[in-house]
Amino acid sequence: MSTKIISPQHRSEFDQRQWARLINSVSGFKSANLIGTISPEGNSNLCVVSSVVHLGSNPPLLGYVSRPHSEESPRHTLMNIESSGEFTVNMVTQSVFKKAHQTSARYKRGESEFEAVGLEELFLDGCPVPFVKESPLKMHLSLRKVYPIPENSTFFVIGEIKTIHVDSSSILDDGYVDIEALGAVCISGLDGYHSTQRLARMEYAKPDREPVEREI
Amino acid sequence: MSTKIISPQHRSEFDQRQWARLINSVSGFKSANLIGTISPEGNSNLCVVSSVVHLGSNPPLLGYVSRPHSEESPRHTLMNIESSGEFTVNMVTQSVFKKAHQTSARYKRGESEFEAVGLEELFLDGCPVPFVKESPLKMHLSLRKVYPIPENSTFFVIGEIKTIHVDSSSILDDGYVDIEALGAVCISGLDGYHSTQRLARMEYAKPDREPVEREI
Repeated sequence: MSTKIISPQHRSEFDQRQWARLINSVSGFKSANLIGTISPEGNSNLCVVSSVVHLGSNPPLLGYVSRPHSEESPRHTLMNIESSGEFTVNMVTQSVFKKAHQTSARYKRGESEFEAVGLEELFLDGCPVPFVKESPLKMHLSLRKVYPIPENSTFFVIGEIKTIHVDSSSILDDGYVDIEALGAVCISGLDGYHSTQRLARMEYAKPDREPVEREI
Repeated sequence: MSTKIISPQHRSEFDQRQWARLINSVSGFKSANLIGTISPEGNSNLCVVSSVVHLGSNPPLLGYVSRPHSEESPRHTLMNIESSGEFTVNMVTQSVFKKAHQTSARYKRGESEFEAVGLEELFLDGCPVPFVKESPLKMHLSLRKVYPIPENSTFFVIGEIKTIHVDSSSILDDGYVDIEALGAVCISGLDGYHSTQRLARMEYAKPDREPVEREI
């Protein structure tokens, strides 16, 4: 095993795509979600996103990173979220990850990724934005804020969770949702999809005792 | 299988900790990293973080969410990053995840989590902030910006990757780093740690063809 050291001066050893794959890999595993939106014209849109993060529980907030707008690749999802103020976040599972990945293809503005990739859209309880029927954990969020990140022209998009639809047997007594049992996958780099195997749940850590595994 | 619907009006069915575990679970799997910093007094600090996300490759930027400051739980990591302008991000693997979790205990300001949990600090190549020796992927970052998120008093902290130290055999020809082969773990909820099993790498998706698995 030999250690490679990569600094700005090694940037030229990598072409643009290699560099993007490298930097996309190093932050660790990523969440895999499908964001569902609707355009002002009423067209559904669906987009796989690997940057959804937990922001806080009170209020229940999630964030995700939207790539920069460009002429060749306008950000339909963000445009739709900004116009309607609402979106859905749907867990990607082992049984649909290939279809989820396919939503990253550059479909035209009016084309529904639901139809193109073969996932079923579902409108529930008066929610105006589409859920993914195949997803065992579906959430309806309202937009709270879009923070432009001028450092690289991305956007940090913050939404508040309004409703969660989830298989009740996956919620354990202490509130933890067993997302592994639901078949959730995680992502590495730009294109790696992984199933998981739980190693342990850990008790709340305290300074005066050793780490303790939690009963599940 | 029955679906549970959780809306704001169901909030009262959960106590505060159950609610936090629930909301922390629903965004999917999280990255597992240890952030290393140094205080103005020269004391090392180490903190497990599950919110590191990829922000962009050019320049190479990562972000993470820092919880709010409070009197009972001041954010030593963020204080140190703001004073020195530098930090390290170190991959958490299967062999050290319990020690990594233990860094979340509330140690006193002057106490080094490295020593308390039994991880070895390492200073490399003149970098003034400590790496985790046991980690097979270590990065040195400089602070680019701290965005306050007034929606819930958190902070979105953005750093630029200066140096990556990684086992060279884990970098594939196309730039992808095989973080599964390095033993990286992912996190669910507040306390679940998982190993992974790769399902596939997918080719860049195009509108006019079916999803294609990539040769690894």
